[in-house]
Amino acid sequence: MQQLTIRRPDDFHVHLRQEDLLPKMVKYTAQHFSRATIMPNTNPPIRANNVSAYRGEILSAIPSDCDFHPIMTIKLLEDTLPHEISVAHGLGVLAGKLYMRGTTTNSDDGVGEVHCMWHTFRRMEEVGMLLLIHGEKPSAFCMDREKAFLTTVYEIAKEFPKLHIVLEHITTADAVETVLALPDNVAATITVHHLLLTLDDVVGDKIQTHHFCKPIAKRPADRDSLIEAATGKMSGAHKFFFGSDSAPHLKGAKECAEGCAGVFSAPVALPLLVEIFEQHDALNHLENFVSRNGARFYRLPFNPGTITIVKKDWVVPVEYDGVVPFRAGKTISWQVLE
Amino acid sequence: MQQLTIRRPDDFHVHLRQEDLLPKMVKYTAQHFSRATIMPNTNPPIRANNVSAYRGEILSAIPSDCDFHPIMTIKLLEDTLPHEISVAHGLGVLAGKLYMRGTTTNSDDGVGEVHCMWHTFRRMEEVGMLLLIHGEKPSAFCMDREKAFLTTVYEIAKEFPKLHIVLEHITTADAVETVLALPDNVAATITVHHLLLTLDDVVGDKIQTHHFCKPIAKRPADRDSLIEAATGKMSGAHKFFFGSDSAPHLKGAKECAEGCAGVFSAPVALPLLVEIFEQHDALNHLENFVSRNGARFYRLPFNPGTITIVKKDWVVPVEYDGVVPFRAGKTISWQVLE
Repeated sequence: MQQLTIRRPDDFHVHLRQEDLLPKMVKYTAQHFSRATIMPNTNPPIRANNVSAYRGEILSAIPSDCDFHPIMTIKLLEDTLPHEISVAHGLGVLAGKLYMRGTTTNSDDGVGEVHCMWHTFRRMEEVGMLLLIHGEKPSAFCMDREKAFLTTVYEIAKEFPKLHIVLEHITTADAVETVLALPDNVAATITVHHLLLTLDDVVGDKIQTHHFCKPIAKRPADRDSLIEAATGKMSGAHKFFFGSDSAPHLKGAKECAEGCAGVFSAPVALPLLVEIFEQHDALNHLENFVSRNGARFYRLPFNPGTITIVKKDWVVPVEYDGVVPFRAGKTISWQVLE
Repeated sequence: MQQLTIRRPDDFHVHLRQEDLLPKMVKYTAQHFSRATIMPNTNPPIRANNVSAYRGEILSAIPSDCDFHPIMTIKLLEDTLPHEISVAHGLGVLAGKLYMRGTTTNSDDGVGEVHCMWHTFRRMEEVGMLLLIHGEKPSAFCMDREKAFLTTVYEIAKEFPKLHIVLEHITTADAVETVLALPDNVAATITVHHLLLTLDDVVGDKIQTHHFCKPIAKRPADRDSLIEAATGKMSGAHKFFFGSDSAPHLKGAKECAEGCAGVFSAPVALPLLVEIFEQHDALNHLENFVSRNGARFYRLPFNPGTITIVKKDWVVPVEYDGVVPFRAGKTISWQVLE
């Protein structure tokens, strides 16, 4: 195939950052995706009281030729009470994001004990707000953190059968199995980098700081399971959809003694997905993964319009506005038709 | 205890590098250790034809107030024939180092197929030269590489019962078990950083480039097994001795997009070992680990003289000659009495 036209896609997990970085980063998501779920782990965190201002900042940074709609979220803290859920819902917030304390960037204010959130989850279930979960148990060994959290996902899903729960950026075969085993109110996002990387690409040869993310990339068998789930090679594949977790950090915050977690994939995600799906003979499933499954789970209409990707080599720039992208300097064989 | 005096120790695994870096690095090992096994993975590699020149470079860099003796090794390549072993042995070389191809820094010229070295190992066994092994199977997943190589260690040990074999810088409980299960011609070195780090200290929170080494630090249970072995908490502990694998890289080669493997521990290794052994109530075994077990296995006399370490806080410098040391900027509670 030399050219592919699909319904316009969504990115159900992206970090747009704040202050100086935000206006620079919005365009890389807006140019390829019609909607994106905007993560709230800024500093200070996005809550009901500042989510409208944050949306305003994002909207004003969208290039005029892009038809892009941010899906706003709030961060769920231990003092996020049901009332805040109702207020946020009234402001058009579609989802609340749960981070356990100490899990990732800006999560020191995260939740220590998930049961103290029960009344908040109940209100989310009532108003129809999604629960997005960074599913790691921070006290576990890094390779076991996601698996160690899965019993908690079971518990939440059982307690709140009508709450739509997204297990974000899954990295293990165990997580795939758990999502498949749970009812249809539980789904998962998968990033493009977790479809490509294993821990070998982080610390197998050199230490590759731009491949460092949370959750850390796992074993080859885990990556294979993610590929199967994303490319529709298993029954239940409608529960898996794309969320890039694109997370820009300035170059100096990555290439240093103690680098930050996050892979900046926004400008390369869609062409890389085409490459991966082509390689696994699954181009017919790509639209489900990037344009349908997530919209359906979010109870959103499919995007109008299409996007065309053509088979044409291009070399990924080594930096975008001071941020080193995933696959910097490497050749990608598909290109979005502008 | 406030002060500890032990027989002068040895470091049975150290990288002194070459060219500009070598004269700067020698003193950090020479000031605390009486002897050290010098790794031959320079570029070009150390072989029978250049080992005497390399020894000369090292000797001329030893500070005049240090009584230090380098233990010279050669690198075993696929074209290292028995004759080269005899020549090297005649030059006073005590050991040959085996790297499988692609295992670590400067190992592209390593051995692809270990059986092609059988005749070389036979000559080493005959002349009494030690075989030092970087025991990883490079094609395996990074967390499994050491374990995947252990069957090869069994095979070599069985084929050459009189060859003294050192499995270098072991990182797993599996390796500890293997060394214990094999006869007394097989021993292992343990670094100070593998007694302290797990993979969590490399990619658990931030990505810590100065904690990146080969083999990569493993799970907490693996570290615990190494501590048991080093601190003499198991029968057979005489088979484990200290080799720092101190491996200096200039700061810029570590703090970058694709950093080199290696922890520079030479200036801090001995005081850190005292801290660790104190913490595990094993100060009475320290001298075995750093001054006796290795000498006995190498068939060398114990060092004359003693070294005294006092309990006194000091802060590790952030750099030594452009190289960031292990525990840079951190406080260590023991100090070598100069």
